Amino acid sequence: MNYTTQMDAARKGLVTKEMEAVARKEGMDIEILRERVATGKIAIPANKNHHSLDAEGIGEGLRTKINVNLGISKDCPNIEVELDKVRTALEMKAEAIMDLSSFGKTEEFRKSLIEMSPAMIGTVPIYDAVGFYDKELQDITAQEFIDVVEKHAKEGVDFVTIHAGMNQETAAVFKRNPRLTNIVSRGGSLLYAWMELNKKENPFYQYYDQLLEICEKYDVTISLGDACRPGSIHDATDASQIKELMVLGELTLRAWEKNVQVMIEGPGHMAIDEIAANMVLEKKLCHGAPFYVLGPIVTDIAPGYDHITSAIGGAIAASHGADFLCYVTPAEHLRLPTLEDMKEGIIASKIAAHAGDIAKKVPGARKWDNEMSRARQQLNWEKMFELAIDPEKARRYREESKPEHDDSCTMCGKMCSMRNMNKIMEGKNINILREDD
Amino acid sequence: MNYTTQMDAARKGLVTKEMEAVARKEGMDIEILRERVATGKIAIPANKNHHSLDAEGIGEGLRTKINVNLGISKDCPNIEVELDKVRTALEMKAEAIMDLSSFGKTEEFRKSLIEMSPAMIGTVPIYDAVGFYDKELQDITAQEFIDVVEKHAKEGVDFVTIHAGMNQETAAVFKRNPRLTNIVSRGGSLLYAWMELNKKENPFYQYYDQLLEICEKYDVTISLGDACRPGSIHDATDASQIKELMVLGELTLRAWEKNVQVMIEGPGHMAIDEIAANMVLEKKLCHGAPFYVLGPIVTDIAPGYDHITSAIGGAIAASHGADFLCYVTPAEHLRLPTLEDMKEGIIASKIAAHAGDIAKKVPGARKWDNEMSRARQQLNWEKMFELAIDPEKARRYREESKPEHDDSCTMCGKMCSMRNMNKIMEGKNINILREDD
Repeated sequence: MNYTTQMDAARKGLVTKEMEAVARKEGMDIEILRERVATGKIAIPANKNHHSLDAEGIGEGLRTKINVNLGISKDCPNIEVELDKVRTALEMKAEAIMDLSSFGKTEEFRKSLIEMSPAMIGTVPIYDAVGFYDKELQDITAQEFIDVVEKHAKEGVDFVTIHAGMNQETAAVFKRNPRLTNIVSRGGSLLYAWMELNKKENPFYQYYDQLLEICEKYDVTISLGDACRPGSIHDATDASQIKELMVLGELTLRAWEKNVQVMIEGPGHMAIDEIAANMVLEKKLCHGAPFYVLGPIVTDIAPGYDHITSAIGGAIAASHGADFLCYVTPAEHLRLPTLEDMKEGIIASKIAAHAGDIAKKVPGARKWDNEMSRARQQLNWEKMFELAIDPEKARRYREESKPEHDDSCTMCGKMCSMRNMNKIMEGKNINILREDD
Repeated sequence: MNYTTQMDAARKGLVTKEMEAVARKEGMDIEILRERVATGKIAIPANKNHHSLDAEGIGEGLRTKINVNLGISKDCPNIEVELDKVRTALEMKAEAIMDLSSFGKTEEFRKSLIEMSPAMIGTVPIYDAVGFYDKELQDITAQEFIDVVEKHAKEGVDFVTIHAGMNQETAAVFKRNPRLTNIVSRGGSLLYAWMELNKKENPFYQYYDQLLEICEKYDVTISLGDACRPGSIHDATDASQIKELMVLGELTLRAWEKNVQVMIEGPGHMAIDEIAANMVLEKKLCHGAPFYVLGPIVTDIAPGYDHITSAIGGAIAASHGADFLCYVTPAEHLRLPTLEDMKEGIIASKIAAHAGDIAKKVPGARKWDNEMSRARQQLNWEKMFELAIDPEKARRYREESKPEHDDSCTMCGKMCSMRNMNKIMEGKNINILREDD
């Protein structure tokens, strides 16, 4: 290959097979796509060692993508349970899977995942560091942190979350501006703890150039993590969050200088009226880099229903330019998600992404809706099931409650507006009491 | 009493006990409230014959309220099943219940409902007409339609949905502007059918003054129905919908002339990027009358999950000024909701309403969130459960998945950011591998 990364290829005027795949799937002109990859507005996370990948693009003008989190941990070390989740996530067409494994045979799990997954794979290497080195956090060296990233890169991980924006400057702003929920990013809090315990700069910030070399070599996309992601609507859009975002903007340009692709991670808990402003801020401060949001969760009071609070926030964020949604499940804030939790989270995220795509006018986004609405007008139930985001649930719901009349459903019975309007518009009378049709 | 309706009282400078109750619950200055009731910006649906009512206000500056639909029908004629739903809706603090009964012992059910319910009660009298008169739709006379409204008014119904905006002018606009899903409002389609079959004007439009006399007498709030509520995102914000809204604006002023309180009903299926504009349109064309929306459902493709599609739309609508959300359950478009469906619908609507209240800066709305976030920061699980919108589910989720360490949950285990940040900020070290605390 006469290029290093997708960005390098795009800048050299080359069209890669990954770009071709993305352009075809999205119906985007290949030259527009190439230009956006060249300028960093679109990322195509595609590690050279991820051979089973079916590449997807993330960024301006493309469909909003979703990510599913899973992985083994001390509380759930069973690889098979997590591989079941992987299979389901793939069946449900999640475009990305983040392996957040933090304990046990993480390498074995990660390798299986990469081998079997056409979806892009992300990791947060710092989660893996403690277990991999079998050392307490404080004792891990800066170089060891970097080495874990290289290990993941070699294995074929497509994007890595790196909290390089939590540097000493950001930490100082955080200390001067008290928060209700401090630092809730898991990786961010671990790094902050390491920095405090060792009185040193964030290793990912200090050795960022070394990190870029690794990412360039394997074409790993850096997903710049937001350690100061707000953990409560109270803390949203505060000095710490915005300070870190400014650092991420600087790190974005440094990555792009080395042809390394970048995504920016974002909130978090955030009131609805702050979301649009945050999308503008990210796109400006980070120079148009794709925005990958976790939520936003629009109220703190609904543990057990955070797939809904985040579907609200995610849909609004996507409408205003977010490119990539991390799913949130009903288990958020309470426990590791089960397979069922995961399914609910995926559906909610897909709804948010699609609703966002309609609003941001992704070409063709409304086609699906129009087909469904046509099927409804025609009372074509089989077609409705086929088009439903979850055909099994839609079918089951109707079958559990059989209507008096085959055409209609039990909601309105013979008062069904579709049924009656069709009759009236054909010049027929309508009957509600009579048993005949 | 020396006044007819709440609006009449407010205009005479009188403070009713209902206004006092609303002002106290909302923490709103009583004079501001009275002024808004006088000008129609706030409605307090409170039929003089609804003796068990605990009055709530709907409108500018107040918390967003939610409504639960239920009722007996040919497919579910069991009064006890529906009364169970009523009890649950009341326990879950729904502020309004609409009895959409369309078949069977509707009077018996309605009377029980009014007697037991501190929540305001709404009906759509036209649903009751066919069964009450035991006549096919076409054969019901204009006066009979009005008489059903009077019957409901006498019995103590607080607000009635009246599709008076679907007049011959609106019908003509509808005919000239084809829609994908025509008229999906059940009451609206029945009225349109009646008008077409009888070649007559909408009885509620033609005899609107008579209707106003009834509403004034009992202080029934008119909820002006939107027959042209879009049934697909394709049909949203179209000529029919806006034409009808203009008629509703005229009818609003006519009602206010008679001191009759008004709410305006609204969409429906609608893409996210159209919602804000629709809120502006309603508030302008209908002179600041409270807006009562059904959804909006932001994509058509998710039958089985329309509590989520409508939570997205409802939260956005509320953020931009909608005052009252009609709940939507997972059963929407598929069947009558079960008790479980109803619960899911109520929670989703309450989330949307609360998220909207935060965004539209209803005083005190953030307090609940801040208390939850403080409990999270302190890892005070009992407090979190107590504050959760559904304490039972939150507790069950955590208990089904016990963590290795009591403080944390299985999501992050000892990598819990709350746990580790609390330690670091107290100057302590953190341990992830070691078994001791």
